[in-house]
Amino acid sequence: MTTPDQADLEPTLHTERIYEGRIINLRVDTIAMPSGRESKREIVEHQGAVCVVPILDDGRIALVRQYRKATGGELLEIPAGGLEIGEKPEDAARRELIEECGLEAHTLTKIFQCFLAPGYSTELIYCYIAEHLTATDTNPDEDEIVATELYTLDELLPMIDDGRIVDAKTIAALLALYRRRQ
Amino acid sequence: MTTPDQADLEPTLHTERIYEGRIINLRVDTIAMPSGRESKREIVEHQGAVCVVPILDDGRIALVRQYRKATGGELLEIPAGGLEIGEKPEDAARRELIEECGLEAHTLTKIFQCFLAPGYSTELIYCYIAEHLTATDTNPDEDEIVATELYTLDELLPMIDDGRIVDAKTIAALLALYRRRQ
Repeated sequence: MTTPDQADLEPTLHTERIYEGRIINLRVDTIAMPSGRESKREIVEHQGAVCVVPILDDGRIALVRQYRKATGGELLEIPAGGLEIGEKPEDAARRELIEECGLEAHTLTKIFQCFLAPGYSTELIYCYIAEHLTATDTNPDEDEIVATELYTLDELLPMIDDGRIVDAKTIAALLALYRRRQ
Repeated sequence: MTTPDQADLEPTLHTERIYEGRIINLRVDTIAMPSGRESKREIVEHQGAVCVVPILDDGRIALVRQYRKATGGELLEIPAGGLEIGEKPEDAARRELIEECGLEAHTLTKIFQCFLAPGYSTELIYCYIAEHLTATDTNPDEDEIVATELYTLDELLPMIDDGRIVDAKTIAALLALYRRRQ
């Protein structure tokens, strides 16, 4: 576990700020290794994110199909999005579920949190199960186009095996739901 | 699933190359949305990676504890590392397991592949289970310090729940192993 008060094993000697963007920033830290040797760490700064497994009353799960420029194709993912500044993860989970699926969650249960790419990214994502959902108006982000699709967990698990689901947070969250149901 | 031959829903109008690094590059694409509106996509380019769940003959699993500058602390993760140019994922998995744990895998089984952060990163990671392991000399990367720890799956699953494991690929891989054992 990351304990913020533990000794910094790679103290920063200096930082070069490369890019300040909309979703991410990039900096390069020159650090001192425990051996005394210097090394570089390329760090993508991200505000953090949330993702949600929305379970309808009939047991089906709502996922979104979305074009992802970085992957060159459409991915089937659970609803997710970045934290706004000062926003609590649970509030962000409710907001994203409305924006992407037009669903309001009356029960939200946190199942885990994790760093997506700790080798270079600061992004920490909080994962929830959303239940007792009611339909509401969507409030789409004008910068993204998403389409909702509904599947049972039994339909989704083989889609991890055969490569129809290739998103890390979605795989982790669906398998966590599977474990909760055993 | 990402199908490389599908229509590019966000064609690139122009690309600004921001940074060329050791582990990652950064570019910013200006794209045309289906609506015709322009938008920006910040893209972290990564060569791809592998991760491995190494299962000893006694059933215990080898993980590595490693300081991660981007997270500000040590993380407990399954062994993992980047693909070298032209390297096959299965060869990279065998190499990383030797480098990080001093273990040679005689059976390697792919369990899934996924994008870690498809909102901005091209990184695709291939995940394997390694069995029939034999001890060999480690060949550590001089730029990283890792310590191996051994746990049973029954010990590891509660560590996802209580936040002692906070790495996405590790959570996904351990839960995939749990599902295979049901």
